[in-house]
Amino acid sequence: MKPFLDADFLLTTETSKRLYHAVAAKQPIIDYHCHLSPREIAEDKRYANITEIWLYGDHYKWRAMRACGVDEKFITGDASDYEKFRAYASCMPRLIGNPLYHWSHLELRRYFDCDLILNEENADAIWELTAARLAEPDMSARALIARSNVEVIGTTDDPCDSLEYHFALKNENFSTRVAPSFRPDKGLAAARRGYRDYIRALGEANGVEITDLDSLCAAYTVALDRFEAAGCRASDHGMDDLVRFAKPDPYHANEIFRRALASDGEGITEEELALFQTQMMRFFGREYVRRGIVMQIHFGVLRNPNSAMLRRLGPDAGFDVIHGQNCIAQLAQLLNYLDSEQALPRTVLYSIHDTDNDAVAVLCGAFSTSPDGEPRVLQGSAWWFNDRIDGMRAQMRSFAGLSALGKFLGMLTDSRSFLSYPRHEYFRRILCGLVGEWVENGEFPADEKALKELVADICYNNAKRYFRF
Amino acid sequence: MKPFLDADFLLTTETSKRLYHAVAAKQPIIDYHCHLSPREIAEDKRYANITEIWLYGDHYKWRAMRACGVDEKFITGDASDYEKFRAYASCMPRLIGNPLYHWSHLELRRYFDCDLILNEENADAIWELTAARLAEPDMSARALIARSNVEVIGTTDDPCDSLEYHFALKNENFSTRVAPSFRPDKGLAAARRGYRDYIRALGEANGVEITDLDSLCAAYTVALDRFEAAGCRASDHGMDDLVRFAKPDPYHANEIFRRALASDGEGITEEELALFQTQMMRFFGREYVRRGIVMQIHFGVLRNPNSAMLRRLGPDAGFDVIHGQNCIAQLAQLLNYLDSEQALPRTVLYSIHDTDNDAVAVLCGAFSTSPDGEPRVLQGSAWWFNDRIDGMRAQMRSFAGLSALGKFLGMLTDSRSFLSYPRHEYFRRILCGLVGEWVENGEFPADEKALKELVADICYNNAKRYFRF
Amino acid sequence: MKPFLDADFLLTTETSKRLYHAVAAKQPIIDYHCHLSPREIAEDKRYANITEIWLYGDHYKWRAMRACGVDEKFITGDASDYEKFRAYASCMPRLIGNPLYHWSHLELRRYFDCDLILNEENADAIWELTAARLAEPDMSARALIARSNVEVIGTTDDPCDSLEYHFALKNENFSTRVAPSFRPDKGLAAARRGYRDYIRALGEANGVEITDLDSLCAAYTVALDRFEAAGCRASDHGMDDLVRFAKPDPYHANEIFRRALASDGEGITEEELALFQTQMMRFFGREYVRRGIVMQIHFGVLRNPNSAMLRRLGPDAGFDVIHGQNCIAQLAQLLNYLDSEQALPRTVLYSIHDTDNDAVAVLCGAFSTSPDGEPRVLQGSAWWFNDRIDGMRAQMRSFAGLSALGKFLGMLTDSRSFLSYPRHEYFRRILCGLVGEWVENGEFPADEKALKELVADICYNNAKRYFRF
Repeated sequence: MKPFLDADFLLTTETSKRLYHAVAAKQPIIDYHCHLSPREIAEDKRYANITEIWLYGDHYKWRAMRACGVDEKFITGDASDYEKFRAYASCMPRLIGNPLYHWSHLELRRYFDCDLILNEENADAIWELTAARLAEPDMSARALIARSNVEVIGTTDDPCDSLEYHFALKNENFSTRVAPSFRPDKGLAAARRGYRDYIRALGEANGVEITDLDSLCAAYTVALDRFEAAGCRASDHGMDDLVRFAKPDPYHANEIFRRALASDGEGITEEELALFQTQMMRFFGREYVRRGIVMQIHFGVLRNPNSAMLRRLGPDAGFDVIHGQNCIAQLAQLLNYLDSEQALPRTVLYSIHDTDNDAVAVLCGAFSTSPDGEPRVLQGSAWWFNDRIDGMRAQMRSFAGLSALGKFLGMLTDSRSFLSYPRHEYFRRILCGLVGEWVENGEFPADEKALKELVADICYNNAKRYFRF
Repeated sequence: MKPFLDADFLLTTETSKRLYHAVAAKQPIIDYHCHLSPREIAEDKRYANITEIWLYGDHYKWRAMRACGVDEKFITGDASDYEKFRAYASCMPRLIGNPLYHWSHLELRRYFDCDLILNEENADAIWELTAARLAEPDMSARALIARSNVEVIGTTDDPCDSLEYHFALKNENFSTRVAPSFRPDKGLAAARRGYRDYIRALGEANGVEITDLDSLCAAYTVALDRFEAAGCRASDHGMDDLVRFAKPDPYHANEIFRRALASDGEGITEEELALFQTQMMRFFGREYVRRGIVMQIHFGVLRNPNSAMLRRLGPDAGFDVIHGQNCIAQLAQLLNYLDSEQALPRTVLYSIHDTDNDAVAVLCGAFSTSPDGEPRVLQGSAWWFNDRIDGMRAQMRSFAGLSALGKFLGMLTDSRSFLSYPRHEYFRRILCGLVGEWVENGEFPADEKALKELVADICYNNAKRYFRF
Repeated sequence: MKPFLDADFLLTTETSKRLYHAVAAKQPIIDYHCHLSPREIAEDKRYANITEIWLYGDHYKWRAMRACGVDEKFITGDASDYEKFRAYASCMPRLIGNPLYHWSHLELRRYFDCDLILNEENADAIWELTAARLAEPDMSARALIARSNVEVIGTTDDPCDSLEYHFALKNENFSTRVAPSFRPDKGLAAARRGYRDYIRALGEANGVEITDLDSLCAAYTVALDRFEAAGCRASDHGMDDLVRFAKPDPYHANEIFRRALASDGEGITEEELALFQTQMMRFFGREYVRRGIVMQIHFGVLRNPNSAMLRRLGPDAGFDVIHGQNCIAQLAQLLNYLDSEQALPRTVLYSIHDTDNDAVAVLCGAFSTSPDGEPRVLQGSAWWFNDRIDGMRAQMRSFAGLSALGKFLGMLTDSRSFLSYPRHEYFRRILCGLVGEWVENGEFPADEKALKELVADICYNNAKRYFRF
């Protein structure tokens, strides 16, 4: 029996162990897609206790606690930090087979030198031990980043953002590059209440009075210039719930946009929204091509299905779900349209539903043709609900079988936590596990040079090259 | 090589073996969802031969025989019982990898002390051996139940049912609790021919003249009182083919219902059906909340696609198929509506299509918030076509990865046969196989106490607690 | 560690090895569905270099090269054959986990006696070695077929085809039977530009002036007579992108057809197309029943999503993708309609999306009832994007769990290459791997006779019997 979470955790063969320890573990981290707060990095935030750093904002843990029947009081309610931590600890034994079980213990080991099993009995000991540890100097936001060998952090930022903290970090020469990612989703949600206010704020933040499509694009151009100046190499488009496509024209798109501004989103039909959004994707795509910015597209999330909890806790509180419907055909139309308009930059596609893996891998291949030596469109990492052993293995097997795994961009954390870097370790162990199995099953030659290059590429080089960091 | 079906069948690690033999095997069975006939229990039915108990009503076996090219004469036709048994036996070698292969052999071993391999050569010996065994006293319906350590049987019953056999069994103090489950599907099928007759029968059975929505609900209230008196703790809603949702109001729902009664279902549109059904689900949901009855929702079945065979053999003859289309978004709307109307009781969701596993596991999490210490909405067991090794493992891995496996309600047979309890054994072996692998791979600590609790909870305690048996 | 691609490649247990070497490897090949050119067989085509035989027409390899970021110049462009081969060789290390990695190396070993690893370093050596080998007499099209123990080749042919090469081969008594398969897709694409020209050609090829539905069917009848005379046992219907169904009638179908002829496909709606196609499937189905021809239905492909590459390279250049949407319900309607019209022959269903596996396996069961000892409707082999280890294992596990694996028709290559027969070897190894695992895990008895029969049936006998070769 393998001990729990030992040095060879998830390394299923000798080849896996060798590749992980000699190559994968040593690669710097390019966390090209996360939700860390640049302000907290700039201000070098500190934490009073484990609940602050673990449970204040982590809706993955909240979901798991709800699934265990924990009262909301101990999740997002007015229970004390200590009580909340105990409640989480008590859930642990029921989370067998859940990535949180592994992430939590990896974080305890890697950052707190604590190899206790997290459960009700050990909760108090861990509470005290972690509090003491958090008081030490090497447990601030920046110290945690530095200790984790992070070369690049790609945050997620609204075009309204001044990026002051990014510029500040740049001026300070903080050892890790903190690059903003351009996420203009709110400006595309033309059928949502509050749209008018958002567009006004977007105009103000970028010094443009937005009254029509041209001025909207002008504001985004100003924002993109600022993002580029701050080192932006990626954008992020969350297409909730499914990808929409309608062949656009500027005249109608402008008319729809002006109407959405006037009505604050009321009366905009699904078809109109699709047309407006496609027009805007054409604009963004061309800008990204021109600036060498990678476009990330996420889709398949059904946001906020529980109205009562949305009213109570707001969005991003652990209530989003998998939509489940397939939109590959619309996505194919969108890519084809952008391609025909010289508006298809390097693009990464992420589906939230693992049943899309094969279709996404294949679709990427239909648009990967590129003159620059890199495949243009790539399938992204196993994301959100897929970010677990089964999900990552399935995504990699699908990528390998239907595309070329050697070009995979590897892991991202998508996280809000400064303790989340062990997810890269987790991914790298799973990758080496899989590769080692192929080799030891006789499915790939034991060519050490080729294998080392493959692993280093997926862990580090490919992302660096593709995003041009 | 592991011998076929030995004591450690499916127990892939030492931990698996220990957990199975020491814990799982010893738990009583709560078969909270099946289709046993309460009358046959009450009358303590006996069987003349293996065909009677195996092949008279088991459409799983019929399907398999058709897939082997067996003439319908030997399946549902006028061949003799002996010929039918021989035909089934002859199919066996082609059923490698099919759960029927395991179920049939487990049943021969557990109930007939017969460890012969079922095939054409052994068919005669098994025919005679089983006939002799069936003549013994301990092979009646009740004896089979008693020998199987069954604590609770949840039958499936129409609101027209008088439940006379349930009450009889209760009065007799039969050692196994036989609880009815409330299945009102027929009263919701307002667009189907024969609806008027069904509603008349429903009224008569419950002493209410049904003329409108109020009297329909009144009849159901009478029925629910009777079901509760007979020990009902669960309802069952088969949403064929997909879950429908349309925001209802009582005025329109009443109008649609009255029209459906008048026309015998003719002219009721899909949208009207959705509205009427959602209104009724609100009624049922509120009743279930009030009475502490669990609501089970099954979906995704395309019933009776083969019209010729439906005319020839009627429904439930092995011709239903997987619909395949995804209705997670509609299901989310239904749950949200019920929740907003204080009409969302403890709920179990079952999809027939295993590609829904992840989406269902996640959706449950969005509505699991509960003040009573139990998650409100839970993903159900791998059901019907998923009730096999791959299907059960996939459902449990999905449940574990996206929810909290420690809260899983475990197995149900969904069966019409008194010999089906080895399916609980099958499930428990698969569960212990999976858990043991996690432990021995170093993915979960070898914490014997936690593991034993986990296994006992999933096999027995969780269902007992959740259904309040 | 197992050496790469040794004699026991993919044979995971002792039972697997025994079954493969003693039974599977020895079965003749019935490649009932491929795209070999009958002309190239008849003319006994030869190849000047490895690029000609490997890269001229293989869009699987083209896709993989694009996924590696190779410039189109080295894929379909004007680079030399040598440069193209080098470009492909250089991609190899990134294709870990891709079936091309295995196919390419199997072909080098089986036909070129070359066990070098294909990569940039070995490219020159392999280029020279293969060129020398291709100059030898036993490397012509027919010699490759003969060496591969191929009993039957089922080509894919248009009803316009004179089948002259099939007849020539028949007259010559070429040792392998080369049977045409009837693929009338173009005549059903009534909404596509160029339809009129195609129908004119169809009429001319079959000596019938086609002006309406009756004369269309008359032309197809002539074609079917010719196909039958040439030994045709199968038809092939590629239902792009999804299966359509609309209950037809001859009057409307005729009207739609005449309008499509007049307008060259313009103005034909989706609904009209569905009606016309269903009417034609009724015609074909009846003909197939009468003639004992198997109907193959493929669905789920989204063709040519990349318009620019379609303009540049034409169809079938590696740009088709998985549609992803589910059409099981429509397929069920089509099968039911054909069945009700005595127009459902022996039928094989192939989905391009592996998430359909379970639903297709179950659907087949609903129409498999047959008086002739063979199940009427069968799930086809893991096809195109599924034709890899994961895809084949998943399809077989699904088939086994939900149908009767012992009736499976086994492998087809779907290939344009005379070197593709190792894909049968690949399949047979995977099959024996899976069967051996079941046996050695104790999930099936170690009954050597039953196992040998099972393997021989799936590799050879079932296809021979089902297609009546």
